[in-house]
Amino acid sequence: MSVTFPKGFRASGSAVGIKDGGRLDAALIVTEDSEPAVAAATFTTNLAAASPVRLSRRNLESSGGRAVGVLMTSGNANAANGKRGDADASASLKALSDELKVDPQLLLVASTGLIGIPMPIDRLLSGIPTCVASLGGGSESSYDAAKAIMTTDTYAKTAEFEIDGVRFGSVAKGAAMIAPNMATMLALITTDALVTSEVLGEALGRAVDKTFNRITIDGCTSTNDTVFALASGKSGKTLEISQLQMALDVVCSSLARQIVFDAEGATKLVEVVVTGAKSEDDALAIARKVAESSLVKCSFYGEDPYFGRILSEVGTAGVDLDSDKVSITYGTVLVFEGGHEVEYNRDEVVEVVSSREYSIYIDVDEGVAEGAIITADLTHAYIDENMGTS
Amino acid sequence: MSVTFPKGFRASGSAVGIKDGGRLDAALIVTEDSEPAVAAATFTTNLAAASPVRLSRRNLESSGGRAVGVLMTSGNANAANGKRGDADASASLKALSDELKVDPQLLLVASTGLIGIPMPIDRLLSGIPTCVASLGGGSESSYDAAKAIMTTDTYAKTAEFEIDGVRFGSVAKGAAMIAPNMATMLALITTDALVTSEVLGEALGRAVDKTFNRITIDGCTSTNDTVFALASGKSGKTLEISQLQMALDVVCSSLARQIVFDAEGATKLVEVVVTGAKSEDDALAIARKVAESSLVKCSFYGEDPYFGRILSEVGTAGVDLDSDKVSITYGTVLVFEGGHEVEYNRDEVVEVVSSREYSIYIDVDEGVAEGAIITADLTHAYIDENMGTS
Repeated sequence: MSVTFPKGFRASGSAVGIKDGGRLDAALIVTEDSEPAVAAATFTTNLAAASPVRLSRRNLESSGGRAVGVLMTSGNANAANGKRGDADASASLKALSDELKVDPQLLLVASTGLIGIPMPIDRLLSGIPTCVASLGGGSESSYDAAKAIMTTDTYAKTAEFEIDGVRFGSVAKGAAMIAPNMATMLALITTDALVTSEVLGEALGRAVDKTFNRITIDGCTSTNDTVFALASGKSGKTLEISQLQMALDVVCSSLARQIVFDAEGATKLVEVVVTGAKSEDDALAIARKVAESSLVKCSFYGEDPYFGRILSEVGTAGVDLDSDKVSITYGTVLVFEGGHEVEYNRDEVVEVVSSREYSIYIDVDEGVAEGAIITADLTHAYIDENMGTS
Repeated sequence: MSVTFPKGFRASGSAVGIKDGGRLDAALIVTEDSEPAVAAATFTTNLAAASPVRLSRRNLESSGGRAVGVLMTSGNANAANGKRGDADASASLKALSDELKVDPQLLLVASTGLIGIPMPIDRLLSGIPTCVASLGGGSESSYDAAKAIMTTDTYAKTAEFEIDGVRFGSVAKGAAMIAPNMATMLALITTDALVTSEVLGEALGRAVDKTFNRITIDGCTSTNDTVFALASGKSGKTLEISQLQMALDVVCSSLARQIVFDAEGATKLVEVVVTGAKSEDDALAIARKVAESSLVKCSFYGEDPYFGRILSEVGTAGVDLDSDKVSITYGTVLVFEGGHEVEYNRDEVVEVVSSREYSIYIDVDEGVAEGAIITADLTHAYIDENMGTS
């Protein structure tokens, strides 16, 4: 049911012709009665933000955190297209507002796909009526919406959660360019909780920081990253802030992990956990340096427990530490401690590194803080995906 | 002639059995008369510095910047080996000092190869007499020394330079893990200039900063990076400081470019030049973000002029700028300006990106400072080289 699991939402996924071959490329999610929902969002930190990001940011501000619906398209990022890109993004919401008979400032838009190529705006505008006509509350509609935002994703990503009669639904897409501060990652979380825009926005920001901002695929931060949250209020219930936070954490965490699992060409999901740091920032800096290292990621791909490379990255994370105090554990097998390799059963380590998902623990013995980054391996298929735009 | 081009040096390259198959793996460079030369060095900034780095740093300090010779081995980095690694490094210089009949503190050592595996010290010690017996002043000896430090390099790297009767020679190795603040990169520069250790060290530091620290292959910084300089004084001539600097710049620049050209699996050498920045630091930060991006490097490999990815990296370099003012030029072909793609001849761009070496110019129109980083593409062969240790 994904985004239509909470009360008060309809969804559709349509093929408007941004992608070729009749593939789904336009997802629309709107409130059931076209009444404004409470809305919040987190956007990319990239200074070359795409036109849809700029427009959605502006609309959210002018509406005071309210929105009737979100249009999410795939196949073209509408980024690096200058004033034409801005005009195309506005035109798409104007067309949608005409169909829905709502103020265009109450609509949001996000796009993902190739950068620097003009949006085929005529086809998108012609397709808007179909997007609206296809809106439905069933699971097929919401699954089509999830599929319509995919680019190089191999499966649609959704997550649901329910607590005290309040429901949360979501869709997301990822694939590559997933890095700190989000990435070519689009996500929409719907809920029927009664909540203010301010509370929803703060909780969403914290959830994003703990989940989407702690995954990395290639260290690149996209021009288009967007996480939207819409709250219809139709459950009639207000959650404790801690419950709301937990619910958003659970949903975002599930989506974030799915994104790394399905990273372009990935054959491994590896959680790099740093413990014993002086601060959480230190722990995350070390974990990120290891998790983003091309050399380390090649060794994940090769199923090679090469702790020496991990130690080398730890030593260059910009965090003061004593490398002789560092210990490294693959899964449950300690391999390095006290400045040198220790005795261990190599078969056990091989079993860990040949798993589809595993964790590596790095203790730096400087304090009590910890932090983790989830990453994927660097593979031939990743290169194949990213060698060309066609 | 490489390291024996200047007066006063002998060299050898031997197979002592660190690598298998009888491949050359130990280079020795000493002064002709076993008299101390003036010495300087630049070492890795990695906190997990290898045992040879720690020992050479200590010896240079205690000798007050003098050295009789340098032992450089390949196949094993002697890093992450704890106290045993330190003892092995010391033992190798002790054996060498016995043969040369000099104080071991007047000897330097550097190693490159796998991390975390104990050095086969018995074989190295047994081979030391051969290293010494093979010393010679001819081009064959010095070429053997250049070959003996290679790991995944495909050719030996040397550079010579002469100015006003003063000569400079050099050897280097690179391949992967080449990043800011040096990398698994070893280099030795010899000269017959008359110079103090202080002047030589300062000039060497500046040269390294302008050359080796402005190349990148995978953003990883090794545990073992070392650049040594030895000055025999046998030309009897003192250079102007500007001449000395220029000579070191020329030699280091040549070696650095050779290292990127021969990067693991590389099919492209690309110079990323940022102009119009507010400061040189800003220019270098932007150039480095682009040059280290896996996505950008995949597009280099695919010979795909995907300027959108370059713009996206520029927007996330941590430098304040207006993305609508950025222009991007491949070779001599302007492709992006004023926030959008411009008209250009696509065949001309294809010709640029299919070249073995080319430059990309990024003007950010914020000031007058500039900076450049030289990088390689990310290829299937890079992954193959780094999937396993065997």
